[in-house]
Amino acid sequence: MRAHMFLVSVSDYYQFDDLLTDEEKALRKKVRGIMEKEIAPIMTEVRLLRVILLPQYWEKAEFPFHAIPKLATLGLAGGTTEGYGCPGLSLTGSAISIAEVARVDASCSTFILVHSSLAMSTIVALCGSEAQKQKYLPSLAQLKTIGCWALTEPDYGSDASSLRTSATKVQPLGSMLSVSDDGNVSIYGLPCSPVFNLIHLSRFIVKKGSSGLKATKIENKIGLRMVQNGDIILNKVFVPEEDRLTGINSFQDISKVLAMSRVMVAWQPIGISMGVFDMCHRYLKERKQFGAPLAAFQLNQEKLVRMLGNIQAMLLVGWRLCKLYESGKMTPGHASLGKAWTSRKAREVVSLGRELLGGNGILTDFLVAKAFCDLEPIFSYEGTYDINSLVTGREITGIASFKPAAFAKPRL
Amino acid sequence: MRAHMFLVSVSDYYQFDDLLTDEEKALRKKVRGIMEKEIAPIMTEVRLLRVILLPQYWEKAEFPFHAIPKLATLGLAGGTTEGYGCPGLSLTGSAISIAEVARVDASCSTFILVHSSLAMSTIVALCGSEAQKQKYLPSLAQLKTIGCWALTEPDYGSDASSLRTSATKVQPLGSMLSVSDDGNVSIYGLPCSPVFNLIHLSRFIVKKGSSGLKATKIENKIGLRMVQNGDIILNKVFVPEEDRLTGINSFQDISKVLAMSRVMVAWQPIGISMGVFDMCHRYLKERKQFGAPLAAFQLNQEKLVRMLGNIQAMLLVGWRLCKLYESGKMTPGHASLGKAWTSRKAREVVSLGRELLGGNGILTDFLVAKAFCDLEPIFSYEGTYDINSLVTGREITGIASFKPAAFAKPRL
Amino acid sequence: MRAHMFLVSVSDYYQFDDLLTDEEKALRKKVRGIMEKEIAPIMTEVRLLRVILLPQYWEKAEFPFHAIPKLATLGLAGGTTEGYGCPGLSLTGSAISIAEVARVDASCSTFILVHSSLAMSTIVALCGSEAQKQKYLPSLAQLKTIGCWALTEPDYGSDASSLRTSATKVQPLGSMLSVSDDGNVSIYGLPCSPVFNLIHLSRFIVKKGSSGLKATKIENKIGLRMVQNGDIILNKVFVPEEDRLTGINSFQDISKVLAMSRVMVAWQPIGISMGVFDMCHRYLKERKQFGAPLAAFQLNQEKLVRMLGNIQAMLLVGWRLCKLYESGKMTPGHASLGKAWTSRKAREVVSLGRELLGGNGILTDFLVAKAFCDLEPIFSYEGTYDINSLVTGREITGIASFKPAAFAKPRL
Amino acid sequence: MRAHMFLVSVSDYYQFDDLLTDEEKALRKKVRGIMEKEIAPIMTEVRLLRVILLPQYWEKAEFPFHAIPKLATLGLAGGTTEGYGCPGLSLTGSAISIAEVARVDASCSTFILVHSSLAMSTIVALCGSEAQKQKYLPSLAQLKTIGCWALTEPDYGSDASSLRTSATKVQPLGSMLSVSDDGNVSIYGLPCSPVFNLIHLSRFIVKKGSSGLKATKIENKIGLRMVQNGDIILNKVFVPEEDRLTGINSFQDISKVLAMSRVMVAWQPIGISMGVFDMCHRYLKERKQFGAPLAAFQLNQEKLVRMLGNIQAMLLVGWRLCKLYESGKMTPGHASLGKAWTSRKAREVVSLGRELLGGNGILTDFLVAKAFCDLEPIFSYEGTYDINSLVTGREITGIASFKPAAFAKPRL
Repeated sequence: MRAHMFLVSVSDYYQFDDLLTDEEKALRKKVRGIMEKEIAPIMTEVRLLRVILLPQYWEKAEFPFHAIPKLATLGLAGGTTEGYGCPGLSLTGSAISIAEVARVDASCSTFILVHSSLAMSTIVALCGSEAQKQKYLPSLAQLKTIGCWALTEPDYGSDASSLRTSATKVQPLGSMLSVSDDGNVSIYGLPCSPVFNLIHLSRFIVKKGSSGLKATKIENKIGLRMVQNGDIILNKVFVPEEDRLTGINSFQDISKVLAMSRVMVAWQPIGISMGVFDMCHRYLKERKQFGAPLAAFQLNQEKLVRMLGNIQAMLLVGWRLCKLYESGKMTPGHASLGKAWTSRKAREVVSLGRELLGGNGILTDFLVAKAFCDLEPIFSYEGTYDINSLVTGREITGIASFKPAAFAKPRL
Repeated sequence: MRAHMFLVSVSDYYQFDDLLTDEEKALRKKVRGIMEKEIAPIMTEVRLLRVILLPQYWEKAEFPFHAIPKLATLGLAGGTTEGYGCPGLSLTGSAISIAEVARVDASCSTFILVHSSLAMSTIVALCGSEAQKQKYLPSLAQLKTIGCWALTEPDYGSDASSLRTSATKVQPLGSMLSVSDDGNVSIYGLPCSPVFNLIHLSRFIVKKGSSGLKATKIENKIGLRMVQNGDIILNKVFVPEEDRLTGINSFQDISKVLAMSRVMVAWQPIGISMGVFDMCHRYLKERKQFGAPLAAFQLNQEKLVRMLGNIQAMLLVGWRLCKLYESGKMTPGHASLGKAWTSRKAREVVSLGRELLGGNGILTDFLVAKAFCDLEPIFSYEGTYDINSLVTGREITGIASFKPAAFAKPRL
Repeated sequence: MRAHMFLVSVSDYYQFDDLLTDEEKALRKKVRGIMEKEIAPIMTEVRLLRVILLPQYWEKAEFPFHAIPKLATLGLAGGTTEGYGCPGLSLTGSAISIAEVARVDASCSTFILVHSSLAMSTIVALCGSEAQKQKYLPSLAQLKTIGCWALTEPDYGSDASSLRTSATKVQPLGSMLSVSDDGNVSIYGLPCSPVFNLIHLSRFIVKKGSSGLKATKIENKIGLRMVQNGDIILNKVFVPEEDRLTGINSFQDISKVLAMSRVMVAWQPIGISMGVFDMCHRYLKERKQFGAPLAAFQLNQEKLVRMLGNIQAMLLVGWRLCKLYESGKMTPGHASLGKAWTSRKAREVVSLGRELLGGNGILTDFLVAKAFCDLEPIFSYEGTYDINSLVTGREITGIASFKPAAFAKPRL
Repeated sequence: MRAHMFLVSVSDYYQFDDLLTDEEKALRKKVRGIMEKEIAPIMTEVRLLRVILLPQYWEKAEFPFHAIPKLATLGLAGGTTEGYGCPGLSLTGSAISIAEVARVDASCSTFILVHSSLAMSTIVALCGSEAQKQKYLPSLAQLKTIGCWALTEPDYGSDASSLRTSATKVQPLGSMLSVSDDGNVSIYGLPCSPVFNLIHLSRFIVKKGSSGLKATKIENKIGLRMVQNGDIILNKVFVPEEDRLTGINSFQDISKVLAMSRVMVAWQPIGISMGVFDMCHRYLKERKQFGAPLAAFQLNQEKLVRMLGNIQAMLLVGWRLCKLYESGKMTPGHASLGKAWTSRKAREVVSLGRELLGGNGILTDFLVAKAFCDLEPIFSYEGTYDINSLVTGREITGIASFKPAAFAKPRL
């Protein structure tokens, strides 16, 4: 009954699998298998000598670094990129795989997304030099090197256009990263414990251990607790010219990275919801009260069905988004709508799931409580729900409404 | 700005059209054209000699019988049936067409659905005799004869298994329809003004004007006001043997009719939502307050985007349901989930739309108010939201929860 | 079972009555009695010779003018005003009475509110001349003269500060009302069929039949259908000096009228919800499906309880608002929050109620369908939900956010 | 900005304080002061040598036992009980105090509630012997002894009538607690780390350290992480006769304890919501994006106002519940409705608050994230939302609907 036991998936009610190619089906099956059998037991490490539970990584807010080789066997890092040791998956295959990972553990899916959709894609999409690709991608694809990505500053989240970190050309050939005024800036990175750091910003690859670079783990998170976000301080960090991403030519290249990343993120709420549904479905059939399985109660059935309906719709919205991308038709508004909509529906799903499990819905042992918490950062990252809504709103109305009007005095 | 002017459709944000065959696309385009240009002006008959409006049919709760020949040109009656003058459409084509009809006028879509998906399909699916098909279908397909369908009794709605109307074999060859005890029962039919009556129940075709048959229009409806529901009284109505639907052999045949009908009904909320979105999108761009188009306000943009997200998901859920049906995989639970889910999401859409139009959202002149009301009967017919949820709930849990427990005494 | 039969009120679960004075209790009881016994039968005029129903006023969108003498016996017109034949009620008494009226019929409550809280209060609060009070109030208090109130123009609703209608001093002593540029403006008034017209604006009393004044009934409403809203055209309407409201000295006087009116409006959703709950409670106990009263089903009980909880909270919020007003502490933000919050909760209540009645929830015969529709105009008038939220938002943040930012070009 | 700094409370928009007696106002003020100045810094222990944060108790899931003497100065333990060193507060005063505690830290409020409303009240209401009161209450009132309370078993939560733990009379005078069949049962207690254990069940006072008693802390909670719930195993635990609660004569006595406790629990969501609102209000005014404080954005203002409206209503519902109790009119249905309704509204409040803080809404440093998680166990304990709804539903319909119907076979 506990979270590490994934028995059977029952959320694919409308047989979504039919929409996948044979390769995609095989990939999904493989990823699910590894996640259920190899990763789930690590994430919720339980030693059943009577009722003794070993500390869990989520509970401890630690990342199970020894799981990385197993995560590598998923073969997801690099996603749609071909060559350089990357898997060259279809976007749809990549997306459904991320959902499968998130179904078992959302922190893992964020770990992979940051590494693959942000860090690696940046190099692929932005770097001009063949040398950089050859140098970094193969190792990243095998998870032998871990990438992260830094964009926001503590005072600038949604408003990423106002960042203050700067870079100056210095001799010998290279750049000095610092904030212009006080030489001290912290940048949130995702995830840290950075074996390797990719600062996107004025586009530099920054390596762990660089002089002047300091990364502190952000504590006290309520969700995605295994993911190691970091406060990154750059104090005159020298970056050699060979690690500057020179290939970036247009803002469209960055948009491409962000748009694809947003598609991937849209699939995390889908996977989380699938996992929650599976767990609830099983729990309601096993758990009895008043002499009957909880599944026999009208109020519970309606909740379960509402969750299931949302999941079918989310899968299809996510799938359509992939198809739009694959056919070159996807706009930023499409991606934002997808991310905003699936994360909103998932919020309803995990909230219902949390409720369905009653007191056991408070314990992470049953997966649902953890999923309930993990969804929250996803609801807010890569554009909060509101920001993504306004991105789509701008696209369909032609009017940007991000900034408020000049402040008027209150009239009583 | 008023409801009869449909300018351009903007709700197909995720390019749903790509999922249709060329035939289905052409059909959709044709239906949309007829609805926008031929039907919309009738439904909201406006004579703009200054500001004088002619009474509207919806307002008057009357059906525009002179619109029937134009509705016939849609070519939808008979749906997927081949032969007998029926169009032999794909289920997907049939469904998207119903949405296009509902987009302009929901009453029209219900009129067609009852006629085609209930009355005609019953004959097709249930009647054994080739003679009956040949006798009735061609005229029905051309809307020269209008069918309706009666199932529920005033005291039995959701619980259709407890109906009391009965039939007795009599001489000469035929049956006498009556209620067993007091010889008087009223059955709701949809729609009445019955040119022709199809009583399903113990499966009889009953013609308008039969002795003992009395149909009274049900007044005071708040939604689908053009649709003429009727209280049907059967007082020893003789039905000749040739009008008994003898071919029905199994309950599965009836289920087939109801399941397909439920798929069609699931598309009504989709079409209604599309129409509401189109109208709101236009209204927000045209209407100004505080010196700016309403589309420039954050609160309005978020509502618009939420509506749009729901619509993309509804279209895809409806589409997937059709595909499941077409491939022979659809279960009753699938259909119930589709109907329940789309009607629930549409309720959110029309409620947001009503709100977006402010004071003008109260007047049916702008379509949205009408759509807001029309959705309500659809939310409750062909299985209320709750009943459909429990149908799906039973399928996924294996436990039926329709009936409440025996009544326990209140304990304080 | 039908709407004209109000049996017993069961919505006062938390014994709200305890918070009323003896006078207020007596008033409430009296108003409820008259509404249930005298007014309800008129509003839903039913002649039960078998099943024949006479046309209803709501259905016909007509006002039952013969009910006015009975409405006069309620003794509510003039509200808190003392003297001049006005009842001098407490605000709380006045408010709970409006709820009792709305419980039976929302159109009636709007009729009284416009007459009393808008038209009469304007004279009381704004007019300087003792003569005007003595001339108009007694007759208005007895409903022998009917007042209405005009504020918005078709192009200016929420943004009432941009109105274009103007007045010019002319000889002989008086004013000419017209729009400045084209001499033709329409103003929405509530309710029309105006026995007597009060134009607020540059504050004039305008009598029915004045030359140049034309009022046309607004058709095609989905809610409050008995209330006769009018398009009012002013084409050089002369108003004698004695009918100019000269006493108005400050904008605070107007605010006072509007704030008190908003408190009253906040009580309409409360009354509507009470009526809907009563009807649902009775229906669920009487109506049987699957061999049990609908009240025995879990899904129905939860809905009923959710409605009941909302109603208790609404009553208390409305009551507290009255107390703040009575003690001179109420701010515009308080009133706006009250109106926005109660109308939002009521929307949930009537939507649940509509659903609980299934197919019968579509027919106005059962009250609930009518209430479902009547709430919508109330949700949007006297400040839409959004506008009222922003009024409160401005008060608690010190920042006005009504106007959107300058239009930015869409960036893709 | 961080959670330990409570600046000023702004949630009492409708001046709820006016409804309190002078004693209650003074109590509220005192409790707020202690919580803000003494307890808040402990709960979120921060050492601001640059940015170094010491581990927090919530994060570590540990209880700060050294805070107990400070909690004792609140003077809340014993609540309404007079004599025996108890404070003899009014129920209203007791309730508003619990809200003030929960406003700063929900775990603390649960700690106090279990100790006072469950453990102490049980002795007061159930124990017959004057000796037991004199022996235990004074020490409990000063928090020198800590009580907990055990009711549910792992397999019986909502269905508390099916518990299996049993007691047998043994010699010497006393009782042996065990489960009847296998001599081993675990009972959830709240909170454990039990200095002192009160087993309610067959009503025994069980002391920490008793032979056969084993309490294990329940790990991996997502909310109320400081509260130490325990799995309690009773293996032939001997309880001397003097520790048996003999005074309990009727089930009504137990109901009384539970009903009063439920009133108190209803105030936790109120306090939590107040704290979240205060923090969001401040955050939105301080935090800037796009050159403006977040408070200037329409979408944020509407959320803030919705939260504020809910809080006003919750305060009033909670207050009315206290008045009903104090006047002897409160029924179990009243209490259940209060708890269900406030916890449901609070769920909306904390969810909006979580969203308003964006990325910072994930960190417990800002209180909101913690509150978001803490609400969930409260939503489910002392009767889940559904169970409480059905308790009220039974009272208002006269029909119990807890148990589902006999299992029917699925019909396809």
